[in-house]
Amino acid sequence: MKYRQIYQETLLNDILPFWERYSLDTQYGGYYTCLDQQGRVYDTDKFVWLQARQVWMFSKLYNQFEKRPTWLQIARSGADFLRKNGMDANGSFYFSLTREGKPLVQPYNVFSDCFAAMAFAQYAKASGSDEYEKLAKNTYLNILDRKGNPKGIYEKSMGERQLKNFALPMILSNLVLELEDILEPEEVERTIAFSVDEVMEVFLQKDSGIIYENVSTDGSLHDSFDGRLINPGHGIEAMWFMIDIGVRQKDHKFIQRATETIIRILEYSWDEEFGGIFYFMDGKGHPPQQLEWDQKLWWVHLETLVALAKAWEHNPVKTIKHWYKKVHDYTWSHFPDPVNGEWFGYLNRQGQPLLTLKGGKWKGCFHVPRAMYQCYKSFEKIETEQ
Amino acid sequence: MKYRQIYQETLLNDILPFWERYSLDTQYGGYYTCLDQQGRVYDTDKFVWLQARQVWMFSKLYNQFEKRPTWLQIARSGADFLRKNGMDANGSFYFSLTREGKPLVQPYNVFSDCFAAMAFAQYAKASGSDEYEKLAKNTYLNILDRKGNPKGIYEKSMGERQLKNFALPMILSNLVLELEDILEPEEVERTIAFSVDEVMEVFLQKDSGIIYENVSTDGSLHDSFDGRLINPGHGIEAMWFMIDIGVRQKDHKFIQRATETIIRILEYSWDEEFGGIFYFMDGKGHPPQQLEWDQKLWWVHLETLVALAKAWEHNPVKTIKHWYKKVHDYTWSHFPDPVNGEWFGYLNRQGQPLLTLKGGKWKGCFHVPRAMYQCYKSFEKIETEQ
Repeated sequence: MKYRQIYQETLLNDILPFWERYSLDTQYGGYYTCLDQQGRVYDTDKFVWLQARQVWMFSKLYNQFEKRPTWLQIARSGADFLRKNGMDANGSFYFSLTREGKPLVQPYNVFSDCFAAMAFAQYAKASGSDEYEKLAKNTYLNILDRKGNPKGIYEKSMGERQLKNFALPMILSNLVLELEDILEPEEVERTIAFSVDEVMEVFLQKDSGIIYENVSTDGSLHDSFDGRLINPGHGIEAMWFMIDIGVRQKDHKFIQRATETIIRILEYSWDEEFGGIFYFMDGKGHPPQQLEWDQKLWWVHLETLVALAKAWEHNPVKTIKHWYKKVHDYTWSHFPDPVNGEWFGYLNRQGQPLLTLKGGKWKGCFHVPRAMYQCYKSFEKIETEQ
Repeated sequence: MKYRQIYQETLLNDILPFWERYSLDTQYGGYYTCLDQQGRVYDTDKFVWLQARQVWMFSKLYNQFEKRPTWLQIARSGADFLRKNGMDANGSFYFSLTREGKPLVQPYNVFSDCFAAMAFAQYAKASGSDEYEKLAKNTYLNILDRKGNPKGIYEKSMGERQLKNFALPMILSNLVLELEDILEPEEVERTIAFSVDEVMEVFLQKDSGIIYENVSTDGSLHDSFDGRLINPGHGIEAMWFMIDIGVRQKDHKFIQRATETIIRILEYSWDEEFGGIFYFMDGKGHPPQQLEWDQKLWWVHLETLVALAKAWEHNPVKTIKHWYKKVHDYTWSHFPDPVNGEWFGYLNRQGQPLLTLKGGKWKGCFHVPRAMYQCYKSFEKIETEQ
């Protein structure tokens, strides 16, 4: 079977039916994401990241893949739930809500807002709603306002050690393309320039070719737990955001540089003993503080497949095909649940399921279907050209 | 070799020399705690929990075991460092400091203060210093003031779900005995009554015999990630605090109840497949949100040995001896590092070192030597009576 077909069939016949069947809260709207191995709901709290990401996913598929009315209906249920319940008085998004929509955890960082903006923008396009388009734009502007101090009053650092974090510039580089149609062109160019510069010139290290999660505000590396932290999956995911920007700007050299970074991070973070990509590493090889450092996570491997498929699309060279096959074989032989459908999220270092859940506080209807769709699109091009 | 002798010799010839040799910052005072397998410093940040705990440990040994001048000197170095650098303007303790003593992370919870109060009280006794005694008392009173809202402005919960946490009543039950000499007798009785009631009547569940980490403010269990969370090591450690209170109050029935709880938690949390005690569990058997749930941690096993040794002292029955031997065999065959001395802190489920550090952000000179000392004291009684 061609790769294209594997991804398309898995998306349509396995992944989406799982979420369509088990995740819909028909009473209060929105989605259950805490689903056990069989798809049974084991917790009803609603985490805003995952609510927004599922709205985005079904809207995106409706916009780009097929106009299925049920997909629009599923997206609407979550979009309405978030619009009604997700925001505080400042338009900032809570971290989590009860099943009914009452706020549980404060808007203590800005990432709920990023995923909400993505969700509303795709849903606005799918539904043709001006109200959602306005909401997407306002949410985006609110993120920019909070950019300098994304944790607000919940920032625990005293300011003695000035570090900045990779996540926000990384997410902005994707978010701005998602919202391109509804933002001013100058705003789009400004944010692309900002995030490309931060990702490729500040967080990506010239000498090692590796991306660090935190650097000093002057761009230098800092020898501390936070300053030594490497999250390989994060760095690789950012590189496919960069490839998307390179495609938009028709900059093949830039795509080439992103591709080299993917390979470099993979060489650095591949577990030679058991296979798979480590979750966290310390840039100096010291013990990381994250006890889950050696685990193999679904999103890390799926984002790597997306990155490699996009890289392959533009540079069909041996190294990329070799790494694609290596990561593909590991990922497809370890993460899918052949009995109950959908994918396991968390494997131990040896590759066995550490938790058998299909969804939880952080895993929802997002990385698996998004990667299926992205890889399908890339291989559609690659395999047609062959 | 008798157990007493194993603990005494390991404490004096292995554990203490390791920290005496590698942890002392002779330039700025206080201690390095980030030590790799060989004892080399890999990070110089100073975490207030661990600074305070090392002050406490050396002061305690000076007060109760032997008046070695070097022990007093080591304790003084950390006590002075903490007094000069550890507090904000309100007398609350920061979470972490730079090597030089500049504050890094805000006093975002009250546990730094708990360990500082313990440290200052023991050091006051060791040094005969009124200033440190006053500081210990003020820090204790500051903890009581913050008791109703221990996270202060860093509380992210919206208040919709009112849960209270086990850690503070648990720690208070130990802290109040530590400070008994310098507090008013009524205050001691009041806090003992409060913490015994919280631990044994609120967090310990009548039907299952298990301790939960969070319960609703009305005492009922809450079906949510936090509400289902079980930390077996925490519960077992609390039971030896309860046994100490039972001894002070000459209440054999109370000691008996604490002992039964130790055994019950052990039966619940022992890993039948690979041995050892799980780090986190979900009260309903659902997937816990802690990815490190199946790891085997040094402190969990050491606190269990202390609890079982104390239980044995008062109830030398077969079940306790059986469990003591089982936990002893696992712990002593997995955690000690026979090559470089001291103990590994973090093992994977299978029992292999996950991180080879001897100290870090959370592991310092505390659980290993405290358990050695406590077990030595218990077996001194048990083995003399035999």
